[in-house]
Amino acid sequence: MKQINIGLLGFGTVGTGVAKILIENRDMIASRIGAFLNLKRIADIDVTSRRDIELEKGMLIPDAGAVIHDPEIDIIVEMIGGRTVAKQLILDAIGNGKHIVTANKALLADGGNEVIAAARAKGVDLAYEASVGGCMPIIKSLRESLVGNRIESMVGILNGTCNYILSKISQDGSSFREALAEAQENGFAEADPTLDVEGMDTAHKLAILTALAFGTGINLKDIFVEGISSISPQDIDFAREFGYCIKLLAIGKDMGDALEARVHPTMIPFSNPLSNISGSLNAVIISGDCVGDMMLYGRGAGMMPTASAVVGDIADIARNIITGSCGRIPVLGFQADRIKDKPVLPIDELVTHYYFRFAAKDQPKVLSKISGILGDHHISIKSVHQKGRETSGSVPIVMLTHLAREIEVYKALNEIQALDVVTGKTVLIRIEDQNYND
Amino acid sequence: MKQINIGLLGFGTVGTGVAKILIENRDMIASRIGAFLNLKRIADIDVTSRRDIELEKGMLIPDAGAVIHDPEIDIIVEMIGGRTVAKQLILDAIGNGKHIVTANKALLADGGNEVIAAARAKGVDLAYEASVGGCMPIIKSLRESLVGNRIESMVGILNGTCNYILSKISQDGSSFREALAEAQENGFAEADPTLDVEGMDTAHKLAILTALAFGTGINLKDIFVEGISSISPQDIDFAREFGYCIKLLAIGKDMGDALEARVHPTMIPFSNPLSNISGSLNAVIISGDCVGDMMLYGRGAGMMPTASAVVGDIADIARNIITGSCGRIPVLGFQADRIKDKPVLPIDELVTHYYFRFAAKDQPKVLSKISGILGDHHISIKSVHQKGRETSGSVPIVMLTHLAREIEVYKALNEIQALDVVTGKTVLIRIEDQNYND
Repeated sequence: MKQINIGLLGFGTVGTGVAKILIENRDMIASRIGAFLNLKRIADIDVTSRRDIELEKGMLIPDAGAVIHDPEIDIIVEMIGGRTVAKQLILDAIGNGKHIVTANKALLADGGNEVIAAARAKGVDLAYEASVGGCMPIIKSLRESLVGNRIESMVGILNGTCNYILSKISQDGSSFREALAEAQENGFAEADPTLDVEGMDTAHKLAILTALAFGTGINLKDIFVEGISSISPQDIDFAREFGYCIKLLAIGKDMGDALEARVHPTMIPFSNPLSNISGSLNAVIISGDCVGDMMLYGRGAGMMPTASAVVGDIADIARNIITGSCGRIPVLGFQADRIKDKPVLPIDELVTHYYFRFAAKDQPKVLSKISGILGDHHISIKSVHQKGRETSGSVPIVMLTHLAREIEVYKALNEIQALDVVTGKTVLIRIEDQNYND
Repeated sequence: MKQINIGLLGFGTVGTGVAKILIENRDMIASRIGAFLNLKRIADIDVTSRRDIELEKGMLIPDAGAVIHDPEIDIIVEMIGGRTVAKQLILDAIGNGKHIVTANKALLADGGNEVIAAARAKGVDLAYEASVGGCMPIIKSLRESLVGNRIESMVGILNGTCNYILSKISQDGSSFREALAEAQENGFAEADPTLDVEGMDTAHKLAILTALAFGTGINLKDIFVEGISSISPQDIDFAREFGYCIKLLAIGKDMGDALEARVHPTMIPFSNPLSNISGSLNAVIISGDCVGDMMLYGRGAGMMPTASAVVGDIADIARNIITGSCGRIPVLGFQADRIKDKPVLPIDELVTHYYFRFAAKDQPKVLSKISGILGDHHISIKSVHQKGRETSGSVPIVMLTHLAREIEVYKALNEIQALDVVTGKTVLIRIEDQNYND
């Protein structure tokens, strides 16, 4: 039986998972694709630590260069992460005519266009299913299953750490700090959680999905990003009273001449299936002109789910090698000469529903002052809740708005903030109020 | 730009949807796959009815033979349905070297092995994503994304009619008859709903998925099938009290030496994400040794969602034609010489949890008699609820069991049925009690 040789760069958690699958499920994979996926060589600077897998002697070496220059190796699997070493190794491997599988969303989101152009120029495949949503076949769905659809929007929970933390705050009434500490204890958050909780990891993934869905290049810098660190149990409780939960969402929409691409804590109604996605799970709803709403749901991270997606990519490329059809699917899902530049709408121009929580003195006319300013800015109030007094003499006033323009919201909130009856910073949470059920 | 010629057989609902996508989204599809998908000819016995689409003159003809023998046509899309005409046309088209796209689950489930063998022998592609779960990429996931996984189980809601009816009974307390009538009024059930409500449509889909997941041939005849016509609002209410809902599930499991393959109304806990799938939607949870649990969710029927899946298949084959890689993926996901026969476990040998509702006289010792018989058959009771008296002097006694073997359950229920204190037929509903959440 034909044999496809694989070189693995990086033998950390996911790299070890990939090696386990290739070795332990070797025969079953061959029974599906008709060739052996032969893990020939692994490079990692750490060649001594024990991993939960038996390797043939000499398979693990410290020199990545020896792997990417090995003429027998067909596919390089980059599991190093980061944007410097990994990028150069991928570019060198492409230069050597190797096909690439990677899960490196940071690199693809910020530097991806260069890597993709190199792969295109050399005629090699570059696959990256594991970079977004772990095991969910979101990239395959966009590049293949949904080719008949004009994609209208994608709305997803793409970061398990944030979803775990928000679920904890929601279930236990913990503060953000407490929930984060618990996530770290349970291995659902990194020691430095900044990339996750500030939303950048989600933005990286959205940058990739936006390009695939809407036929543009990858454009990270124009994505609006707001993290979850200011979400309080109080806002989650108010949201629940209104029939909403709060999730960190990646939202991409085709608005005709421009795209929406934004990451922020979002209130969604309990009728939205994303509201049921709790803990460290990921899910995405893709809406297309033919398909309606389709949801994918699964483990967005972790050794084996991510490794499963990597092996799926390796198998796709192996099938291309076997049948001589490399380049069968363009890297970004659209033919290179058909990729457009489509501007991302500045967040100022967003039109959506809003939740505001004002902290105000418990005095007459507060509500009329606030609603007067909102009215001046064409922001129409859908409902108001004024809750029990706080001991400080300050009360929370909670409002949901009809559709409003973000720039007007900013102006209004600035004016409201300057009122002497307003005692604290106003909380703003955007609402995504589409109904996904029948 | 290259052009791939498509011939469409059947111009009903889904056929019209396929034509709409190919014509209206023609340029966008070309921008993705690098070739025009050219709908060259449509055959339907009805050439006069107006459909919601403009066709070029002469495109629609009554003679399917002229389409499958047209030497310029590369791909035949069979949207006729049924097992006689459709099968012969597909076999003839394969004989002419045409690639096939079909959504015909009845034909694939019952006669599929013959069609698949013909396609394999001729070296043409046969794609059928739309045969299961409408727009959800379940077949692509099994044949491609999950190749690294040993699939352990699949549990799915695969029939929108049944799910709509069960949701109605659950929400409104309607009877089965009332809910069915409403489903028919709203276009969610056929005039003759037998195939749907008796579970055969779901069994057809499960037969296809079982082959793909577990590497066997298609085996419809050994699937246990029980429909939803005996489900009453009363059982749905009791289920809810225990924390369960009732869904018609397709269940396929790899038990080592044998497979489970069964379709029946099933109680699942509200923590199972399938419990949130209401109305006419479909969803499947696939569990693999690497991936854990992954769920796909979307519209399982309807003109455009189904057509979207058909066009995804056409595009896959077109990409194979463009790159000369037809046969790139084996029809059933495994290499032909690696497809095994694996027996399906007879339902008698099933071991699961059960829900029983007995109708018994409101007399002393009834419970001890029933539980005594269950004990004789090694059926251990997990909980018992005895509800308020009915006017007839008969009361419902509801029980959940620990794991029990179905053959013992039958024996016990037969003995219980013969008791003079038992006044009506016992209701049995199987329980699927795996927890899918973190």
